[in-house]
Amino acid sequence: MDKQFSHIDHRGSANMVDVTEKHISQRLAQAEAFIYMSAETLTMIEQGNHHKGDVFAVARIAGIQAAKKTPELIPLCHPLMLTKIAVDFELQPQLGRVRITSLCKLAGQTGVEMEALTAASVAALTLFDMCKAVDPTMTISGLRVLEKQGGKTGHWQHPEGA
Amino acid sequence: MDKQFSHIDHRGSANMVDVTEKHISQRLAQAEAFIYMSAETLTMIEQGNHHKGDVFAVARIAGIQAAKKTPELIPLCHPLMLTKIAVDFELQPQLGRVRITSLCKLAGQTGVEMEALTAASVAALTLFDMCKAVDPTMTISGLRVLEKQGGKTGHWQHPEGA
Amino acid sequence: MDKQFSHIDHRGSANMVDVTEKHISQRLAQAEAFIYMSAETLTMIEQGNHHKGDVFAVARIAGIQAAKKTPELIPLCHPLMLTKIAVDFELQPQLGRVRITSLCKLAGQTGVEMEALTAASVAALTLFDMCKAVDPTMTISGLRVLEKQGGKTGHWQHPEGA
Amino acid sequence: MDKQFSHIDHRGSANMVDVTEKHISQRLAQAEAFIYMSAETLTMIEQGNHHKGDVFAVARIAGIQAAKKTPELIPLCHPLMLTKIAVDFELQPQLGRVRITSLCKLAGQTGVEMEALTAASVAALTLFDMCKAVDPTMTISGLRVLEKQGGKTGHWQHPEGA
Amino acid sequence: MDKQFSHIDHRGSANMVDVTEKHISQRLAQAEAFIYMSAETLTMIEQGNHHKGDVFAVARIAGIQAAKKTPELIPLCHPLMLTKIAVDFELQPQLGRVRITSLCKLAGQTGVEMEALTAASVAALTLFDMCKAVDPTMTISGLRVLEKQGGKTGHWQHPEGA
Amino acid sequence: MDKQFSHIDHRGSANMVDVTEKHISQRLAQAEAFIYMSAETLTMIEQGNHHKGDVFAVARIAGIQAAKKTPELIPLCHPLMLTKIAVDFELQPQLGRVRITSLCKLAGQTGVEMEALTAASVAALTLFDMCKAVDPTMTISGLRVLEKQGGKTGHWQHPEGA
Repeated sequence: MDKQFSHIDHRGSANMVDVTEKHISQRLAQAEAFIYMSAETLTMIEQGNHHKGDVFAVARIAGIQAAKKTPELIPLCHPLMLTKIAVDFELQPQLGRVRITSLCKLAGQTGVEMEALTAASVAALTLFDMCKAVDPTMTISGLRVLEKQGGKTGHWQHPEGA
Repeated sequence: MDKQFSHIDHRGSANMVDVTEKHISQRLAQAEAFIYMSAETLTMIEQGNHHKGDVFAVARIAGIQAAKKTPELIPLCHPLMLTKIAVDFELQPQLGRVRITSLCKLAGQTGVEMEALTAASVAALTLFDMCKAVDPTMTISGLRVLEKQGGKTGHWQHPEGA
Repeated sequence: MDKQFSHIDHRGSANMVDVTEKHISQRLAQAEAFIYMSAETLTMIEQGNHHKGDVFAVARIAGIQAAKKTPELIPLCHPLMLTKIAVDFELQPQLGRVRITSLCKLAGQTGVEMEALTAASVAALTLFDMCKAVDPTMTISGLRVLEKQGGKTGHWQHPEGA
Repeated sequence: MDKQFSHIDHRGSANMVDVTEKHISQRLAQAEAFIYMSAETLTMIEQGNHHKGDVFAVARIAGIQAAKKTPELIPLCHPLMLTKIAVDFELQPQLGRVRITSLCKLAGQTGVEMEALTAASVAALTLFDMCKAVDPTMTISGLRVLEKQGGKTGHWQHPEGA
Repeated sequence: MDKQFSHIDHRGSANMVDVTEKHISQRLAQAEAFIYMSAETLTMIEQGNHHKGDVFAVARIAGIQAAKKTPELIPLCHPLMLTKIAVDFELQPQLGRVRITSLCKLAGQTGVEMEALTAASVAALTLFDMCKAVDPTMTISGLRVLEKQGGKTGHWQHPEGA
Repeated sequence: MDKQFSHIDHRGSANMVDVTEKHISQRLAQAEAFIYMSAETLTMIEQGNHHKGDVFAVARIAGIQAAKKTPELIPLCHPLMLTKIAVDFELQPQLGRVRITSLCKLAGQTGVEMEALTAASVAALTLFDMCKAVDPTMTISGLRVLEKQGGKTGHWQHPEGA
């Protein structure tokens, strides 16, 4: 087995990857997550949304702010300067869920998939917070990276598709 | 329908619940999440773990620190002073996953389920970060509240059990 | 002159007031600020607002989050646990401005007027940020405390009224 | 009307401007604010200042630190690496006020006027905090951008002058 | 050996002590540190200090702000609400050093010695930062807890005295 | 005397150095600190370490996270994007202490010695926190910069050696 955890050194200690010499390239990552909830809760979000409801606005801001905080939250992530963060929501009532998607961009030395995952994750948690009085049984699932561009790997897509 | 989103007021605006007059009681919440990964990745974590590997140590600290940051991350959460935060991990190779559990405690005016969810979520994201060089297709799923104690609701368990 | 700056000691050094022995009481503060802008910009906000625009939603969340950050921003403020934060907006096109109001509550040992001022201030700055591509000449003015309740001073209102 | 809010997309949702492709240029912004207070309070600051008083020192540090926190405070601001932050104060007793000025510099992809405004704003709030025991009726006014350099706009000055 | 690390559980994992049931008492801790520097550097600080120099003012604010950040910095520390933080400096030119002392107070469930140590430590680092252009060989030493009051231990003094 | 504090201007006010025009070069700094403790405490760390103990893992993460927070902690430090942070520990029981070393790297406009010192300092404080129930008399000493590379100064080593 020649694959290795980049974040653990040969002694088993936590290791921040050294990116000093890495090439600066344009990078992009997209992630998604789902929050499963009752039909009733979905309906309440949908109705609120037709009437200037802030539910998605609050969760969007929370996701954007969380992406900026990624190096504070994930110990071995490098500090970096995102040039674009987007978080979006799609009500999928027939599937009993809201789909959360996120996009992060950067011209830098490391990938931004952790930032995209953190944005989607905190946006989902914020939806949970806003809806929990109605439905405490919600579940957040399917958080994964959909696509990455830039860096040594080039264009990568999740093998199971978007 | 007489249920209401506590975090949205009658005009559809974001609303932080007023807990000034709420009774102080001992509160507790437990949450769980799963990170699904390849058999190879699970084996690498397991082996590292037998040799003083820091994988779980790093993710545990990340989860504990994230719980303290919950009011910074989730806009309508109240600042509060957790008296106990615990994050734990169980390798479940037969199910192709690691189980992450979290516990938060507090003597205060609001529940701590968002803190427990945030701890589990960021611990899972940290595992993702440490293993992503080996397996970028991982998925984080099943993040939910298992149990709550304290406050007006008293003892609550997720209807689908722990 | 027997009045003294509470935050400067007899040597002229910065001084955090010792509140260890202070009584815990329910406290409340309200603040206001105005952002003056062109008629065109006000119209754009107003129209956006009729169509689920996020302008006020984003500024509200920014103000709420800033109130929680007050002890990080204002060096001699005590850390405290706000039980309620509200930020609101009123378009006053005839006066060429938006009025921003904020409210903070707490059961604690120190007043919360700095938290209310910080919330109004950062909400106003966020409006500035969102509108600056259209109107870079905006001015934020009239930031002051309207009212305080609780603590030794009891009920206080700004002599010039709300 | 072809002007548009850069921070709101066509659906009315909050939008962080994508600066990935933007040219890196040297940028600078200057802002000012005023805090109006009683003659008595101004005299106390002035006297303290003659005796190594920390009043302006504390407010200067608060303003500098706040400029660095701008992307945490203003949701749609990009993280960036300021190369210079300065905050200064001028007692203007004949006008019943203190003038606060700020300067931010950067070689980067976005302007730094929000950083300069945030520095001046938090420096003013810190003065408020330090003087409020003597004078709770103070007002912060006239917060605006004086000048910007760099980027597509080039040199911009507030039409009403410095 | 029956003493145990409170922050490591029986499996060797990091453990945040559960203080939920602990009695609230008034607590206080004092700490000290020294920064050793060249005679020339000490003279420059001393002279600046006679002329409204901000050296100690900046380091004092940094120390106070750092005490509030202790639970963000030290992973297993509990969030808490300090009621008093003080940082002070004494030039000891005959010993080639500056003495930094700190004091933290709280009515709460856990001791505040980590907060006092963090305040002294960051105040010393800030002095280092301000003087390093003149003297990069400085050393920070002798950081320790001098005294604690409150909690189960009661009054404790370092056996080697203040 | 023609040397000057770079962080204090000619009026004695705090001054953030303007690095806008500074050349970007690869920079590196190494620092060390020691924590002195009883033989018993050292033995407990050593034994824990043989059994997957998290003591050093927790302190390493705390040090890495603190390096990223340096511009938040040290008021006149510039925000910057470290490309590598490492923290390491060596038990030196014969000297009654643990040695903590840190390394920071960056391609940027300012040196990273404050980041290396902050990492070593907070790692030492975290060890203190974890061991204080057993030994509250510990002392942290000898915090200094060992070596710097890059920038105008080039390669610099502490005159007293590593």
